[in-house]
Amino acid sequence: MPSLYPPTICRLLEELQRLPGVGPKTAQRLMIHFLHAPEEEIAALAEALTQLQERVKPCPICGNLSEDGPCPICRDATRDPGVIAVVEEPIDLIAIERAHDFRGVYHVLGGRISPLDGLLPEDLEVDSLIEKIRESDPPVREVILATNTDVEGDATAGYLAELLHRNFPKLKVSRIATGLPIGGELDYADQVTLIKALQGRREM
Amino acid sequence: MPSLYPPTICRLLEELQRLPGVGPKTAQRLMIHFLHAPEEEIAALAEALTQLQERVKPCPICGNLSEDGPCPICRDATRDPGVIAVVEEPIDLIAIERAHDFRGVYHVLGGRISPLDGLLPEDLEVDSLIEKIRESDPPVREVILATNTDVEGDATAGYLAELLHRNFPKLKVSRIATGLPIGGELDYADQVTLIKALQGRREM
Repeated sequence: MPSLYPPTICRLLEELQRLPGVGPKTAQRLMIHFLHAPEEEIAALAEALTQLQERVKPCPICGNLSEDGPCPICRDATRDPGVIAVVEEPIDLIAIERAHDFRGVYHVLGGRISPLDGLLPEDLEVDSLIEKIRESDPPVREVILATNTDVEGDATAGYLAELLHRNFPKLKVSRIATGLPIGGELDYADQVTLIKALQGRREM
Repeated sequence: MPSLYPPTICRLLEELQRLPGVGPKTAQRLMIHFLHAPEEEIAALAEALTQLQERVKPCPICGNLSEDGPCPICRDATRDPGVIAVVEEPIDLIAIERAHDFRGVYHVLGGRISPLDGLLPEDLEVDSLIEKIRESDPPVREVILATNTDVEGDATAGYLAELLHRNFPKLKVSRIATGLPIGGELDYADQVTLIKALQGRREM
């Protein structure tokens, strides 16, 4: 019931409700928090919000979120530029980095192919991937397709695999594995995951 | 893993995680939203945040959230100043207003008596309530104690009831009813609510 509040509060509640996962109740709880928060905390949040788009730009090499030119991963001489992991969004890159295992570099597509949402290959960083591989010296040895493992992520990976094979017949193209998560119980796994885990079984 | 992000994003994630109910995952989701949101939307949110504390002040009469002096309820000549509902916080007042039933006025305590949190009667708007009733003309006929129905809200109501009886022996002092919520099922009601509902039974 925004009309029960004074206009400044109504305006704030409206803006808060634009945020993902924020309904009327959460917006009200946040508003009460802001009403009693130290002035400096609010100023800091407002400043961080305003600076975000102004300062954060895609890394010109891989598309990762970056400030001041190439991102730390692209600037890191210890990373192997011969292995490129292709991800949909910067948060996917962060997820892989968090695992502290991958030592190659990335290429952020900026989305996935999704004709229903009007997203076609030409809307993604596909041409720049081909060009990057063509011009890379030393040559790229492997491209790991690390798009999400849902229908659209799989379709995107399928499209890219074909395109890469056609352009670079000798390039190794791989797809991240699907299967049961570690610590997973068969009883709790969904059917599709279980089928994929059976199909992808490895001899041991 | 804030260190995987550039500094501007780390700062925003930190600020977002100060908000109630916002953990690392939600902060990241909000950050991604802000990264792609229209610039005007971010500017509007930052402005609404900054203006909040500057413009919204307690109503000088009842303590409700207000802009420019007395709140709309206190300014409304059709409200009955002879009946005062005493609430803990402005959001409680809004909750009662939302029911569109109460036509009296309010008095916001600004909290509840909670010695463990260091909140004593002198930290609340108690003296101003007594003074308001003493000086009211026409006289106040009834004070409805509408503090929350938890232990501390009940204790606060008990304290106020005694204080009011002592100061104004003829004043009617009431407490909002407790019992089963409308549409409630006995099977789902907690024990204390059920005991209160039985004790508060009415002949019919």
